[in-house]
Amino acid sequence: SGAVHIKNPHLDLMEEDILYHLDLGTKTHNLPAMFGDIKFVCVGGSPNRMRAFAQFMHKELGLAGDGEDLADICAGTDRYAMYRAGPVLSISHGMGIPSISIMLHELIKMLHHAKCRDVTIIRIGTSGGLGIEAGSVVITDTAVDSFFRPQFEQVVLDDVVVRSTELDKDLAEELLACSKEIPDFPTLIGHTMCTYDFYEGQGRLDGALCSFSSEKKLEYLKRAYNAGVRNIEMESTAFAALCGLCGLKGES
Amino acid sequence: SGAVHIKNPHLDLMEEDILYHLDLGTKTHNLPAMFGDIKFVCVGGSPNRMRAFAQFMHKELGLAGDGEDLADICAGTDRYAMYRAGPVLSISHGMGIPSISIMLHELIKMLHHAKCRDVTIIRIGTSGGLGIEAGSVVITDTAVDSFFRPQFEQVVLDDVVVRSTELDKDLAEELLACSKEIPDFPTLIGHTMCTYDFYEGQGRLDGALCSFSSEKKLEYLKRAYNAGVRNIEMESTAFAALCGLCGLKGES
Repeated sequence: SGAVHIKNPHLDLMEEDILYHLDLGTKTHNLPAMFGDIKFVCVGGSPNRMRAFAQFMHKELGLAGDGEDLADICAGTDRYAMYRAGPVLSISHGMGIPSISIMLHELIKMLHHAKCRDVTIIRIGTSGGLGIEAGSVVITDTAVDSFFRPQFEQVVLDDVVVRSTELDKDLAEELLACSKEIPDFPTLIGHTMCTYDFYEGQGRLDGALCSFSSEKKLEYLKRAYNAGVRNIEMESTAFAALCGLCGLKGES
Repeated sequence: SGAVHIKNPHLDLMEEDILYHLDLGTKTHNLPAMFGDIKFVCVGGSPNRMRAFAQFMHKELGLAGDGEDLADICAGTDRYAMYRAGPVLSISHGMGIPSISIMLHELIKMLHHAKCRDVTIIRIGTSGGLGIEAGSVVITDTAVDSFFRPQFEQVVLDDVVVRSTELDKDLAEELLACSKEIPDFPTLIGHTMCTYDFYEGQGRLDGALCSFSSEKKLEYLKRAYNAGVRNIEMESTAFAALCGLCGLKGES
């Protein structure tokens, strides 16, 4: 139906829903008026970059003014930053699964309270390429974990719940088609591997700890490539799982 | 010996070490001159709060000036913020284990390059109390995971490595003694539980997803209390494991 699904029976019983880390709430803000017409949400790690992206979208959409003074909608908190340009929201999520998860829970509730429909969400972020040309854009078809499994293990209390990490295949193809209209914009579709750690988790040799040889690292990365992994980052499995469950058309 | 240990044989072979997320490096910065005399590092999630803490320390230490214009040492990046007040560094780490891990890897290498000795590191942050008076300070003796185990599971490539999460007992007692000098400052020593998720992981009923009943949540939190848990947050196991392995005297 295009609506944003909340899978929480407790939420309807609450008099007020406070989105703590966005500094927004159902009693303090008119969320339908603020966000009801949002159709696209773009998320990325760095607050400065997401402001620059909103300014870029402001210009691309030909909106009034130069877009230089876009206000941070979450200015009351320094956890995340949020900007809007027409029907596009641009939000930072920090680094790693726990950080993006907090933001997504509150964003999804916000879109639900605002009665948004047919929302497309795209994560745009830096990542380490694997066996591809530097500067390439990887459009994720499936997010995989460190063991190349297309799943996200979520600990709920002390139960481990396994969730699917497939993303929207049609949207991936659509984005790939768009990339072909731009010259010199190397773009491909592939699996994205998501790790909990930037140094030891991604086979980097320059952390404070490193217990593996460069040979073992190469062997691991070769196995990852053979499993279809084309880039590595730190949020995609949680992003794919949460967006998928809540009815957002997602890409990364 | 009081030195900061790096457990990475590859690091000595590198011509330059770039601390990407701190915007510092061994060729671009004189790290011994900048940080060689640091004795205390305090870390917490929010950049604004860590600036306020540095300003507070500046005043407490009776340093020259009002401390209002402390410069962000990591101003070139918006990933983390770092301030110093005399021998005290104050650094933000964002939210969650992956985010604090990136910062700690680079901080530990920075302290190593700067030849710091006898460094004490303390995480100061908000947390949810469990069966204790609101506003209490919990000094962590041991960080535990969602299953109440005193361990941190680190995925290294595709191996799961289990690390100890014990913190410095003497430092915990010292901090408790300090708290007694301040009137009306409820402080206790206990276990701190660290989760990967703020909503489903901590038994909250107000996330975008929630599949458990309030009875099941209460039963889980009761078991946590009986296992010695007095507060819940999202970074302590990684903090305890990394600091412990690298020779930093740590508390949380």
